[in-house]
Amino acid sequence: MRAIHVGLCGVGTVGGGTAAVLKRNAEEIARRAGRPIKIIIAANRDLDRAREMCGPDVEIVSDALKVVNHPDVDIVVELIGGTTIAKELVLKAIANGKHVVTANKKLIAEYGNEIFERAQEKGVTVAFEAAVAGGIPVIKALREGLTANRIEWIAGIINGTSNFILTEMRDKGLAFADVLAEAQRLGYAEADPTFDIEGHDAGHKLTIMSAIAFGIPVQFDKAYLEGISKLDAADIKYAGELGYRIKLLGVTRRRENGIELRVAPTLIPHKRLIANVDGVMNAVLVKGDAVGATMYYGPGAGAEPTASAVIADLVDVTRLATADPENRVPHLAFQPSALANLPILPIDEVETCYYLRMDAEDRPGVLADVSRILADANISVESMLQRPATEQNDSRADIIILTHQAVEKNVNGALTKIEALGSINGKVVKLRLEHLNG
Amino acid sequence: MRAIHVGLCGVGTVGGGTAAVLKRNAEEIARRAGRPIKIIIAANRDLDRAREMCGPDVEIVSDALKVVNHPDVDIVVELIGGTTIAKELVLKAIANGKHVVTANKKLIAEYGNEIFERAQEKGVTVAFEAAVAGGIPVIKALREGLTANRIEWIAGIINGTSNFILTEMRDKGLAFADVLAEAQRLGYAEADPTFDIEGHDAGHKLTIMSAIAFGIPVQFDKAYLEGISKLDAADIKYAGELGYRIKLLGVTRRRENGIELRVAPTLIPHKRLIANVDGVMNAVLVKGDAVGATMYYGPGAGAEPTASAVIADLVDVTRLATADPENRVPHLAFQPSALANLPILPIDEVETCYYLRMDAEDRPGVLADVSRILADANISVESMLQRPATEQNDSRADIIILTHQAVEKNVNGALTKIEALGSINGKVVKLRLEHLNG
Repeated sequence: MRAIHVGLCGVGTVGGGTAAVLKRNAEEIARRAGRPIKIIIAANRDLDRAREMCGPDVEIVSDALKVVNHPDVDIVVELIGGTTIAKELVLKAIANGKHVVTANKKLIAEYGNEIFERAQEKGVTVAFEAAVAGGIPVIKALREGLTANRIEWIAGIINGTSNFILTEMRDKGLAFADVLAEAQRLGYAEADPTFDIEGHDAGHKLTIMSAIAFGIPVQFDKAYLEGISKLDAADIKYAGELGYRIKLLGVTRRRENGIELRVAPTLIPHKRLIANVDGVMNAVLVKGDAVGATMYYGPGAGAEPTASAVIADLVDVTRLATADPENRVPHLAFQPSALANLPILPIDEVETCYYLRMDAEDRPGVLADVSRILADANISVESMLQRPATEQNDSRADIIILTHQAVEKNVNGALTKIEALGSINGKVVKLRLEHLNG
Repeated sequence: MRAIHVGLCGVGTVGGGTAAVLKRNAEEIARRAGRPIKIIIAANRDLDRAREMCGPDVEIVSDALKVVNHPDVDIVVELIGGTTIAKELVLKAIANGKHVVTANKKLIAEYGNEIFERAQEKGVTVAFEAAVAGGIPVIKALREGLTANRIEWIAGIINGTSNFILTEMRDKGLAFADVLAEAQRLGYAEADPTFDIEGHDAGHKLTIMSAIAFGIPVQFDKAYLEGISKLDAADIKYAGELGYRIKLLGVTRRRENGIELRVAPTLIPHKRLIANVDGVMNAVLVKGDAVGATMYYGPGAGAEPTASAVIADLVDVTRLATADPENRVPHLAFQPSALANLPILPIDEVETCYYLRMDAEDRPGVLADVSRILADANISVESMLQRPATEQNDSRADIIILTHQAVEKNVNGALTKIEALGSINGKVVKLRLEHLNG
């Protein structure tokens, strides 16, 4: 089956990530898409970097027009950014009958109406999942996952730089300027941070979500933008005392006479899940009339998270535009002929951390016995807590042990031995523990 | 343009919700799908209920086979549940060349392989978004949104009944049996709660997600299931002391030699966002190698949340199976000819709550003046906080006011008057406040 041919315009952070993930997960992606997806040509000013990122099989050029005019390219990926060359390239690709995938939020928020009209005329797709909230598939959720709903409002933390700054201001009680300098040092903020901290970036993303949610054209020029640069640390403190957190929040809301579209530092009750989205993470809360509130959370920027969205679009376009009808979206996500033969492991083979609680005699040597049994079974202890079992009986204690990663059958073997100790009463309570590190 | 004809099998909770939402949002759904989606026939044991829920234009029958054999039905919606009649109906619908949408997790987790094979042979789609996590579009995220990724693991709170019980046990320090009785009284647990509290329901959902994430057949018989009925309140307390919460967690993880697939009460660090998903809400955390961790949160059950997923599948099938290629998934979610003409409101017209902070003289009468100005502008105060402005100067105070919902221009007008008071120093700080009630 012929591979889908991708032409890549721009091999910067996201372009490099896209090339890397397409190579690394080539087999898995082909199993999903029904055919391989391959970059055949890439344009970049720095030719050496492009060669290094894309590998020897990809033609490297400096002129991006060569990519959009290449006769063998099926899908053009635009990762140059801005609205001058990028716009020209996207329109030319469409004119040439090629599908387009872009991460360019400014281009879509400001010129989306024109671009979609041209695409519609030519029967090609312009996909832009990566333009909003990086790797979180929130465009897909809004456009396809929530189609039953009359959307009432969307509230999003959609600029990682601002959210990092606000999180640090709150946690450390620092002023805006001090945290900004730290963020710049860490690479979370640009040398000129205006675009992020004054709400432009969030405004672009919100504009796109608003259009999709309410079925209106993109209208970035009507968005109200207020940034965080003038936010006083005192207000973060007072908000905290009142039970609120301040977030740079994009809000778009359906009202009877129109649509609200605004980005501003906003108080949110601290008990809301979205108020606890900290650091550079993004989250979008959507209120639909049927489903209620759903939330989409994850990394909103970065090379591979954004590449994840770019490639999801490539697979979508591939499935929609090229496969036979029955192959379009496979029932189990992978093409039926490409299902894997991986076994489901029996519970004995599971590896996780454990919480163990035992009722023990409160005398010297008990802990030593228990510890030895665990060590012999190759189970290492992460932490331990000892508490009187009951107020009535101070000769017995509850011992609680958290383990590091261990194999379930080893844990079960050790527990049998521990339960056989004269100093241990009854069965040991065993629960599993997951750190769920992102 | 001809409407898509739906045949509904089962008009219980979810069936009733589906009929209601399809009617209420008919116009919006047609704008998205490119054509109307209409129930033309519905089968239910209680004919009166079916008539009441579906309205007079729908043919009501007691024999569901009449639905799947009806020549004008394009898509069969199976909401009967179980694996006897439901399986027979789904296979017959497929044999008749009809697409199928189902919310039946047991059917898909136990008989999905056979069903998908038949569907593949006939070139029809079987869609089952509603089978996992109710209204949260997590099947779509896994199947289409994260296709770039090698999925490493999924961890999900996917049974609302269990999560409600665990939340109450923790918050109120109660024993399992007491909370279960309360949950049954509130309608959050069935009279026979086994299916929910022993992990069967979560196991069905996890089995389906595991298959989609790793590209393997569904294998519910291999899932390890451990429920919450034996969970001791003492362990919830000890876990809390150690910084953890206990959740009934479904975990499926790729290991070198196979796949872990297990449901059990599990400790999670309390600072993880997913550890704070409480009550009947569901959340699924997915770790992909490119995107990192993304999370999908929302109501996992209920008439309209589940109907939201059923209808999203109906729109998907409609777009994929019937529209012209260029109409399949519209760029802005709604068909280009169906965009609305709603204006974006100027910021003056925005309605929200406000946080106001002013530097005031600390003397009688100031608060009265401020309150009168707010009342005159139709702005009502939700709460108020007064703090010494600085430690050096006890003649001045910071007054912080939270307002109820108000119109921005009214707030701005009031602030101009407040700032003109002799007792108020400088500008009033104004931030917006959103309660984001689901």
